[in-house]
This record gives sequence, C-alpha cells and structure tokens, in this order.
Amino acid sequence: MKSFTFLHQDEKTKARVGILHTAHGDIPTPVFMPVGTQGTVKAMAPDRLKAIGVKMLLGNSYHLHLRPGEDLIGEMGGLHRFMSWDGSILTDSGGFQIFSLSGLVKIDDQGALFRSHLDGSLHNFTPETSMQIQQDIGADVVMILDQCVGYPANDFQVKTSTNRTLVWAKKCREAFQSDSQMLFGILQGGTLPELRRYSAEETVNIGFDGYAIGGLSVGEPKPIMYSIIDEVEPYLPKSQARYLMGVGSPDSIIEGVMRGIDMFDCVLPTRNARNSALLTWSGRMNIDRLEYSRDSNPIDPHCQCYTCQNFSRSYLRHLFKAGEILAAELATIHNLFFMVELMNRIRKAILNGSFQDLSSDLLARFQGQIVNT
Amino acid sequence: MKSFTFLHQDEKTKARVGILHTAHGDIPTPVFMPVGTQGTVKAMAPDRLKAIGVKMLLGNSYHLHLRPGEDLIGEMGGLHRFMSWDGSILTDSGGFQIFSLSGLVKIDDQGALFRSHLDGSLHNFTPETSMQIQQDIGADVVMILDQCVGYPANDFQVKTSTNRTLVWAKKCREAFQSDSQMLFGILQGGTLPELRRYSAEETVNIGFDGYAIGGLSVGEPKPIMYSIIDEVEPYLPKSQARYLMGVGSPDSIIEGVMRGIDMFDCVLPTRNARNSALLTWSGRMNIDRLEYSRDSNPIDPHCQCYTCQNFSRSYLRHLFKAGEILAAELATIHNLFFMVELMNRIRKAILNGSFQDLSSDLLARFQGQIVNT
Ligand SMILES: [Zn+2]
Ligand SMILES: [Zn+2]
Repeated sequence: MKSFTFLHQDEKTKARVGILHTAHGDIPTPVFMPVGTQGTVKAMAPDRLKAIGVKMLLGNSYHLHLRPGEDLIGEMGGLHRFMSWDGSILTDSGGFQIFSLSGLVKIDDQGALFRSHLDGSLHNFTPETSMQIQQDIGADVVMILDQCVGYPANDFQVKTSTNRTLVWAKKCREAFQSDSQMLFGILQGGTLPELRRYSAEETVNIGFDGYAIGGLSVGEPKPIMYSIIDEVEPYLPKSQARYLMGVGSPDSIIEGVMRGIDMFDCVLPTRNARNSALLTWSGRMNIDRLEYSRDSNPIDPHCQCYTCQNFSRSYLRHLFKAGEILAAELATIHNLFFMVELMNRIRKAILNGSFQDLSSDLLARFQGQIVNT
Repeated sequence: MKSFTFLHQDEKTKARVGILHTAHGDIPTPVFMPVGTQGTVKAMAPDRLKAIGVKMLLGNSYHLHLRPGEDLIGEMGGLHRFMSWDGSILTDSGGFQIFSLSGLVKIDDQGALFRSHLDGSLHNFTPETSMQIQQDIGADVVMILDQCVGYPANDFQVKTSTNRTLVWAKKCREAFQSDSQMLFGILQGGTLPELRRYSAEETVNIGFDGYAIGGLSVGEPKPIMYSIIDEVEPYLPKSQARYLMGVGSPDSIIEGVMRGIDMFDCVLPTRNARNSALLTWSGRMNIDRLEYSRDSNPIDPHCQCYTCQNFSRSYLRHLFKAGEILAAELATIHNLFFMVELMNRIRKAILNGSFQDLSSDLLARFQGQIVNT
C-alpha cells in the first residue's frame, strides 16, 4: 500500500500538497489533526467533527491504555468503532505522556516503567507493547515509541534520548506487523543541529511510512523550532509524509508548512476554545470580555460554522459566564472549523501559487499574539 | 387567538389529547417540556433538540433576570433569537426560585424582595415586573407570579401563600398586555383539598389562557400529589390546557395524564442524564455500573436516538468515568429522546384507546424505582 502521494510543490517555499492514504480514507495534506485524548475530541460528537470537515484525528495511547485499556477497545471492535468515528486516526506511542504526565520509575533500551497519573499503578511500555497497544486500538497511523526531552536539556540528556529513540525505533520496526496500518518514525535530537541530522539520517535508514519531528514545541523559542525543521527537512524523503508533533497555532502551522511539513496535531484549538479563546480571520478573540456582552455579531462574520451561523458573541459570552456545557461545544465547533478552513486555504494557496501572500497575511494576524487563558 | 384545541378524551380515564397553539407553532399535548434554565437546555445545542423532536421548552425568569438580564435578552431580539430556538418557550415567573434559591428579604401583596444566589444583589419581583420580564424575554407562554410553599407547611403558611397568589394573579392579569403571548394562572393550596378547590375556582374566575398546578412535587408523597390533581381537575375548563409544574418522571407523567394533565416540565431527565442515570423502555439504568464496562449494546436496543444508533454502553460508561463533556451530551440526547417518545406513545395510546394498557405496562417498569445519582 502506498502511504503518501506527493502532488505539488510550491515554487517559492518548501510548502507542498499531497494525499495521505489511510485505511479509513485519503487525507489531503497539509492537514491539522484535532486531539481526541480519551477516545473523544473533547465536547465533540463525531457527527459534529464530520460536519466541520475533520477527516483525521489523534488518539493518545498513554491515556487509552490506562483507561479504558486497549484490550477493552480491541474487544469493542477498535477505537473507530468504539467512538463511532469512520475517519482516520493516528495514535501517538505514549512516549511524550510517560515523560510529561506519569511518574517515571525506570527507563532503558528495553522500555520505560512508569506509574499512572490516575491511580499510581505500575505500567511498562516497551517498543513491542507500544506496537501491540496501537494495533489493538486499530489506529491508521502508528507512531514508534520515543523518548522526548524538555527544553532546556543538557547535551548528555539529548544524546541519550536520541540514541535510545533510535534503538526503540528499530525494535518497533521489527515488532510492527500490520497490512492496514502505517508506521511512522520519530526524529529526536533536542535543539542540537548535528544530533538532529544524525537522528534524521538514522531514522530514514531504518525506513518508515512517514516521519515525525518530535521533541519540539516543548518550551523552546519558536525561531529555534523553525531552524530545527530547516536542518532536518533535506534528510526526509519527499515521497513520504512529514509530521510536526504537538504544533497547532496558526502561525506555527504556516511556518511549518513553508518548511515542508504535511501533518500537525495540537490540543490548543480545542483547549483554548473551552477557555473562551477563539480563532478568527482577524486574529485571536477572547469571547469572555465585557465588550462582547451586547454584541449581536457572530464570532467571525466570515465563518460558515454552525456556531457563527446561529449564535451571537453576546450569547457565547453568556454561556461562558454561566458555566454552561454548551459554551465548550459551540466554541470548539468554531475553532475546529477555523482550523479545517485554514488548512483548506493553505492547500488551495499552494496549488494556485499564492501561498506566500496568504502566509504573510496570516502571520501578521497571528504572530506574536498570546492567548490569555 | 385560540390557545388550545381539545381533540380527544380517553374513555376510561381523564387522559386527553389536544393542541396548544403558540406563536412559535402548534404543540401536540400531552407534552413534556425540557428545562433550559440559563438560556440553554444543558449540554444541548438547539439543532440536537430539533432532531430529538422537542417542540417546546421552559426558561427560568429568575435565572435569566439575574444573568444575562431580560434587558440584554430583549436587546438581542428575545430569547428565541438569543438561543437560536424557533420552537416554543414557556417561562416560569421566578416565584419558585425566589423561595427555593434566593435569600428572601420581604414578601407582601406588592411582591417579593430577595437577594441573588449569585452575588447577593437585591432584586424586587412584583406581578408587574414579572410580566415585563417575561414579555422582554418573549416567551410564548407566560406564567403568573406565584408564592409556593414547601412540604410540609402549616395551614397558615399555605393559606397565606394561596391568597397572596390570587392577589398577584389578578395583578398579573391586569398588567399582562400581549397579543402574541399566552398567560397561564397557577393554582396553589398546598396539600389542603378545600384550599386547593378554592384556589382553582378563584383562579379560573380571573380567567387565563391555561392553568398550572403549582406547589406540588415539592417533597410530598406521590399519592398526595395525585389526590390533589383529582381534587382540582373538575374545576378546570376542559377547553384549556392544564400544566403540572415540576413533574417529569415517567410514572408521574402517566399518573398526571390519566388525571387530565396536558403539560409537564422537569429538570430530572436532563440532570439525571448528566449523572449517568438513563431512562430505557425496560426501566432505569445507571450506565456508570461496572457491568456495562464491556457491554457492546446500545443503552436501549429499542431506541432510535443518535446516541443509541452510534455508541455502546461500554463507550458511554468510559466517557462518564473519564469525565468527558461528551458523556453529558450523549446521555442527555438519549433521555430527552426517551421523553419525546414517551409522550408520542401516550398520545397515540389515548387516540387508539390503549392508554390503560400502556400506562399499566409503563407504571410497572418505572414505579417505585429510585435513581441513585
Ligand atoms: Zn465560526
Ligand atoms: Zn437512545
């Protein structure tokens, strides 16, 4: 099965348009994947996601392993059936959460022993169990187990985690057995250019269906993140998908796309929505503010989402002030619709040669702005 | 404008089928109205309510007055437009909440002075302001301001509140000025049969578009509630709608319908849903229970709701255990669909002469069962 079709390259940047071929459909790229941590994109029923135009989402192996468990999900027919989602799903390997959420007990080339953040129970993730978990879950795209370091980290930590990720990558490649799923490698290397290039070369040598850049968006300044993408991009095969993990702000997506990235995921558009921070074509908006209390306009007059077609800023603000569940749903609908529309505009602009115009326009609206949540 | 059309009377009981004519459509009765306290039925977007078959809902004047305020709602075009609901709306007068939620400061024939449960601010509800508030909100059915007592209450309290409600009823009748809205009277009288009959006669003498039985479902045993309905029903005009306030359990609705009630409202179907307590055609179910963890069946195999058509008990239980917002939405969809279907079955059974069979079947399934939430 061919995993990716490269369609078109922008003339002035490295931006590209393609199609990721998954067992649950073709995904036009560049694509943004909303995060469904616990078997649901928070506050979104799958019919909403469909109506918004979402085609692919991300599930977290760490969370799903702890609750309800991959064995239960497997018994229920896999994650697609369990959550009633017939679009595509990518699962992360759990690596990132082991280091950021759990109590890490022991880590070596065999795997990672950690305590659940929910109940303190002991769990062991190895390259082999991670493959098994993601196979039971039934993801369309499976990620290798990787070790991620934060920012800043010392050179020894970065080196150790990069080498360990390569050891795990080989083991995952060997353990992975599926005709209907794809396996993506993950590059590490912190913010050390030489180590990043080494990680890229070695990971590509092992050979995967696609390549993710991990270990970024962990606290480093954005210019450093962009320079690391620039470093590794030349080492990644043009015929395969590139995925920048954990990145989802409009400006970072544009910067990533122009550097040759095809896939993105991030909790921010949905998490920010639940905190009343909305994305509009004029920039960011906090709907909580007093100035919107009697504003009969929709969030964004240019938006065609269900929320903007039916409700005013005044009503949205009221729902947030009153602590109503519907606030989370309506705000999430809007932010995800914005993300889908953003990726649609990016793809169209790349195809018709106007990507540079679009990117400079949007960067001016979103760069440097901080959402206060 | 004719407010109600009486269509058919059951031969063996007082159950009846009719149509309530509102400015936002005809409502087949008997009808159950979900409660939208703060300008939204909790966890339900209006398109969901539509899809479920809800045609009329209830808004709370007390809550809407405090937040966002009837002036803001009026400025935004009324509650229908504000919450994007083109079905019918009945608003209560705020009387019940003043006595159950707020800090009551002073009450007399002029009205009630109370402190907001939100911020302690002082507010004054009079028959005249209550009419103005509900007119600004734009409800299809407006309720008079009434004074409600709890259970048990001493005779003096009951007598005072019943007489005060009659004084307020006359003032509301005089202050109410609208061609597009209806005004309903409210009967009081606690659990004293004689006072209940007096309240009914006097209220009907004033003359309203419909009549509500208030002051029930406030803690009294259900048999007492049913006997009070039996007492007052003969005094209510057959040509007008009768509304039993605050009642929404399947068994009480059936008992009410067989005693001649046309309209019901209650927070229970939606509140219970958010607490994992579900209604099924086999009786009540708490989806939280361990036995459902690997149950691939829908909540109710006979249910055609979006939730039952797409999700398993196992998935619902997982969402509740994981504290996901989607749990509230999916459970509420199911419970409200059940209520709409219950009322449909009741109406059909009355029309085809099988109401007694239906009621004895359903009472056996729902009577005496307590939902542990
Ligand atoms: Zn929108
Ligand atoms: Zn159902």
